[in-house]
Amino acid sequence: MVASLRLPSLTSLLFPATTCYPASLRRTVCLRNRRPLSGFATAPSGTTASSETKSAEVDRLKSDRAVTPRSKDFNAWYLDVIASAELADYGPVRGTMVIRPYGYAIWEAIQEYLNVKFKETGHSNMYFPQFIPYSFIEKEASHVEGFSPELALVTVGGGKELEEKLVVRPTSETIVNHMFTQWIHSYRDLPLMINQWANVTRWEMRTKPFIRTLEFLWQEGHTAHATPEEAEKEAKQMIEIYTRFAFEQTAIPVIPGRKSKLETFAGADITYTIEAMMGDRKALQAGTSHNLGQNFSRAFGTQFADENGERQHVWQTSWAVSTRFVGGIIMTHGDDTGLMLPPKIAPIQVVIVPIWKKDNEKTGVLSAASSVKEALQTAGFRVKLDDTDQRTPGWKFNFWEMKGIPLRIEIGPRDVSSSSVVVSRRDIPGKAGKVFGISMEASTLVAYVKEKLDEIQSSLLEKAVSFRDSNIVDVNSYDELKEAISSGKWARGPWSASDADEQRVKEETGATIRCYPFEQPKGTKTCLMTGNPAEEVAIFAKSY
Amino acid sequence: MVASLRLPSLTSLLFPATTCYPASLRRTVCLRNRRPLSGFATAPSGTTASSETKSAEVDRLKSDRAVTPRSKDFNAWYLDVIASAELADYGPVRGTMVIRPYGYAIWEAIQEYLNVKFKETGHSNMYFPQFIPYSFIEKEASHVEGFSPELALVTVGGGKELEEKLVVRPTSETIVNHMFTQWIHSYRDLPLMINQWANVTRWEMRTKPFIRTLEFLWQEGHTAHATPEEAEKEAKQMIEIYTRFAFEQTAIPVIPGRKSKLETFAGADITYTIEAMMGDRKALQAGTSHNLGQNFSRAFGTQFADENGERQHVWQTSWAVSTRFVGGIIMTHGDDTGLMLPPKIAPIQVVIVPIWKKDNEKTGVLSAASSVKEALQTAGFRVKLDDTDQRTPGWKFNFWEMKGIPLRIEIGPRDVSSSSVVVSRRDIPGKAGKVFGISMEASTLVAYVKEKLDEIQSSLLEKAVSFRDSNIVDVNSYDELKEAISSGKWARGPWSASDADEQRVKEETGATIRCYPFEQPKGTKTCLMTGNPAEEVAIFAKSY
Repeated sequence: MVASLRLPSLTSLLFPATTCYPASLRRTVCLRNRRPLSGFATAPSGTTASSETKSAEVDRLKSDRAVTPRSKDFNAWYLDVIASAELADYGPVRGTMVIRPYGYAIWEAIQEYLNVKFKETGHSNMYFPQFIPYSFIEKEASHVEGFSPELALVTVGGGKELEEKLVVRPTSETIVNHMFTQWIHSYRDLPLMINQWANVTRWEMRTKPFIRTLEFLWQEGHTAHATPEEAEKEAKQMIEIYTRFAFEQTAIPVIPGRKSKLETFAGADITYTIEAMMGDRKALQAGTSHNLGQNFSRAFGTQFADENGERQHVWQTSWAVSTRFVGGIIMTHGDDTGLMLPPKIAPIQVVIVPIWKKDNEKTGVLSAASSVKEALQTAGFRVKLDDTDQRTPGWKFNFWEMKGIPLRIEIGPRDVSSSSVVVSRRDIPGKAGKVFGISMEASTLVAYVKEKLDEIQSSLLEKAVSFRDSNIVDVNSYDELKEAISSGKWARGPWSASDADEQRVKEETGATIRCYPFEQPKGTKTCLMTGNPAEEVAIFAKSY
Repeated sequence: MVASLRLPSLTSLLFPATTCYPASLRRTVCLRNRRPLSGFATAPSGTTASSETKSAEVDRLKSDRAVTPRSKDFNAWYLDVIASAELADYGPVRGTMVIRPYGYAIWEAIQEYLNVKFKETGHSNMYFPQFIPYSFIEKEASHVEGFSPELALVTVGGGKELEEKLVVRPTSETIVNHMFTQWIHSYRDLPLMINQWANVTRWEMRTKPFIRTLEFLWQEGHTAHATPEEAEKEAKQMIEIYTRFAFEQTAIPVIPGRKSKLETFAGADITYTIEAMMGDRKALQAGTSHNLGQNFSRAFGTQFADENGERQHVWQTSWAVSTRFVGGIIMTHGDDTGLMLPPKIAPIQVVIVPIWKKDNEKTGVLSAASSVKEALQTAGFRVKLDDTDQRTPGWKFNFWEMKGIPLRIEIGPRDVSSSSVVVSRRDIPGKAGKVFGISMEASTLVAYVKEKLDEIQSSLLEKAVSFRDSNIVDVNSYDELKEAISSGKWARGPWSASDADEQRVKEETGATIRCYPFEQPKGTKTCLMTGNPAEEVAIFAKSY
C-alpha cells in the first residue's frame, strides 16, 4: 500500500522535489483574496467591458493573477496553480495540506467513479480505526522496515502516558489482518473483499501538495482469498480498474506494469502499478495494487479451514489510489495559463460568461444566460454562471481559464438578438478554439456541448499519449539509458540484471525502474546492462 | 461541536453506560462466524426445508443465534444486535470500533442524504488536516477546558520527538479559524460555508459502539458570516435539516431545542440540539448546531473588512452529526428479535427468500426469484436475493429479521405456479404481517412494495412518536420531576432556575436538561424549582 505514495528515500535524496512554502505561494493567495478589496478591475456598477475590450486594467490584473508559466518553472507553476485555482493550501503543521472545495470536488469525482467500480466488483465499504498498536506494525518484518521511519505516534491519551504507543495508520494491512482473523473461519467466508475511504499519515520529510503530504486521503482495498490464483486475479483486476479510470476519466495514459523487487511494497510479493508521465516528464506512481501472498496472513495467523477441513493461511491483496491523483491531473494537462481539467472529472464543465455594456442590455443577457444554464444543467452538465458584476468579462475569461474549465459560453447582446452563443474551448487557445453562432435552442446547444466535451476529453488523452510516447526512448545499453535519462526522458529497455545493478542505475542516474510494463515488445531481448538474455523490458525514469 | 458526542463527565460518572467488551459479544460474533463450520442447519445439498417446516434444527439454530431480548436487558440486546447483525466490532485499541459493511452502509445512507442537503444550502465539502498544533486548542478558553481532558497527542513523528505536540482533532474549530483568517478579507468573502466528512478522536473513558467511541466518523460544518443574524439563521437552518432528516429518513421523532448554558458546547454562545428517545427511554443527543458568536474569531483574529472598510470579527457556526446516529437508529426501532431498519435508510429494503423442497422445483423458483429481484432493482429498490442452499428458509427468515430488513418476499413452487409471492413485514410479526398472493407481475409488485415500504416508514415513525409522547411527563414541581425521572421517563416543566439548581437536579436525579424545546406550551409558566416566573419549559432526562 505504501508504494502508492512513497518514493524510496534514496531517490528523494538524490532528486529532492523542490520543497514547498515559497513566499510566492502565500503572496498569490493573498492577491487572490484581496481582489475584492483592491478595487481595480471592478467595472463601474451596471457597466462592464465587452469581451473584446482589452483594457490596460485587464492586462494588469491578468499579469497580477497569472501563474508562473509552466514552460518557465514547472514546480513554481504547479504551486501557483494550486494556490490561484484554490485547490489546496498549507496546513499549520509542516507538510500538511488543506484541500479546498475546488480541489476536493476533483477528489469527489474520483471517489464517485471508483466507489461504483469497487461495489460492482463485489467490494464493500467499511471503516477500521486509525490507531494501531505499535506491536502490530512489528509483526511483518519487511513492513516494519518500510514504515517505521515515517510513523506518527500517539503516546498520550486522555492526559495519561499510554502503556503501548499507538501508530496513526500509515496503511491498514496490520489492523485489517487482526480483524480478518476474527471474521474468517472457513473457505465459505472467502473471498472477503472490503475497501475503506480514509485518511493516512506518513511522516514525510519532503512534501509537495497532493503529491506527498504528511496526511492524505485515499481508498485502500483489502481482500482475502482461498487460493493464490484468486488473489493474483484480484490484484490484476484492481490495477486494470485503475488503468481504465486513468485513461477514461482523467485522460492520463498511465502505463500499467509490475514493480521491480526493490520497488515492491513493504510486505507484498508483487506490486502492480500505474505510472504516469507528468508535464515535466517525471514519473508519478498514480496507483498500486499488491499481491500480498501470505505475508500478512502468516504474520497474523489469518487462517481458514478449506473444504477438507485443513487450516490454511489466506492469500491477500491490497490496493490504493489517493489524493495524489489530483496532483497527477494538474501536472498532466495544465499549461502556461493554469489548470486544464478533463471534462469527465471537472467540477465545472461549462462556465457561462454574460457580457453587457449598458444597463438596458443586462436583463436580456442575464435572462438568456440563465436559460442556457438551466438547459445544460437539466441535461446533466455541471455548469457555472458567472454573473457577478464585480468583474469584467475579460477578467472572468482569464480566471476560468486558469481554473481549467473545459468549455466557456459567452453571451452578449448581439448573441441574444440572434439567439446564439459563442463557445470557447479551454484546450485550444485563442480564436482557433472559439466558435460563434451556436444556437441557443436547448437541444441543439446540449448536443453541441456534449460533442465538444467529448472532443476535449479525447483530445486531452491523445495529446498526453503523444507527449508520453515521444518521451520514451527504447534503449539497449546503459549508455543509451543514461543519455535518455539525462535528456529528461524515460528509458525503456530489456532488463534482467541484479538488484545491485538497479541500485547503481538509481545512484548514477537518479532513475528507478518504474515498472516492467504489461505491454511487452515481441522478440528476444538482451539485458541492456549485462548482455544476458532478458525476458522483459523495464521502464526507467526519474519520478516524484 | 463537541456537544454532539459527549456527555458531561459528571453525568457519565453517575450513570455509567454499561461498558463494552462483555464476553457474550465476542462469543456471539464467533458463533456467527463459525456457523459454516459447525455444520448444523445446513440442509443436504439440493434440498431445503419449506418455510412452513419448523424443524428442531431451525429451532436450535434460532436459539443459538438469538439476541438477548430487548425487554430483558436493553444494553446486552444492543451489543448482541451489533454483533449478530454484523454492524460493528471492537478494534484492538480500547474504545475503538470497526464499522463493518452492514453498519457502514447505514452510515453511507446518512451521508448521501445529508451531503445533498448541505450542498443545496450552499456548503462546499473540503478537508482540513487532522493534526492541530497544541497551542491552537489553548486559544479559546472554554474550548480548551472542555477538550483538554480527552485529547490524543502525537508526540513522535518520523522517529523524532516533536517540538510541539500535536492534537489529533477532537473537532476542527481551531484549525478552521486558522485557515479562515487566510481566506477571509472582505465582506465579499462571506458567507464562507464549508463542511468536511472526517474522523475525530476523543479519549473517552466509557465507550459504547456507535454511541461513544475513541474515534468516530462525522461531518462537521463550519461557517463564517458578516452578521450575528446570519450566523443565527444558519445555526437554526442546520438543526432544522437534521430534524427533518431524523423524522423523514430515520423515523426518529427527535425533539429540537436549545441547550442550557451548562450543556452548551465548549466555545459556543448557543447550542441547538436534536434529542431522541431511545427504546430504554434514555435520551440520545443525535446532532448539534452551534452559534459560535465571535468566540473563535476573536481568539484567532478572523476578521473581515465590512462595506465601510472597518475591520470586524466574523460570526460563526458549526454543526455535526456522527456515526452515533447509527446507534440511535438501532436503539429507537429495534425489538426483541433484533434490528428494525426504516426503509429509507435500510441498506437492504427487500430480501427475497426462495423456497424449494425438491431439486426439480429449484430452477423454477430461483428463476422467478431472480425476475422479481430484477424488477424491484430496476424500480430502484435495494434488494437482496438470498439463494444460498447452505441454509433453510426458516434460518434465513430469522437471520434477515434479526438484520432488520423491512420487507421479505417468499417464493415457493406454489407461488411460481400462481405467479404470485408472499410478502412479510418486519414491523408486524407473524401472520398479521404476512400477505399471500401478491402478483409477481412487475408493475403490480413494484407498486405494492413501494406502498408497503412507505407504510412501514410511516408506521415506525408513528410508533416512535407515541412511545416518545407517552414517556414525557409534564411536571410542575421538583417532586414531580424526581418521580418522572425515577420512573424512567422524561420530565418537561417550566424552568428559570440557576445553573446551581440544574447541577443539583443532575446530581440528585441523574437527569440533565436535554433542551429547551423549540415547541413551547402557551400561557404563563412558573419555574418548577423556584416558583419564579419562567419563560420556557425544559426537558429533563437521563441520557447516553
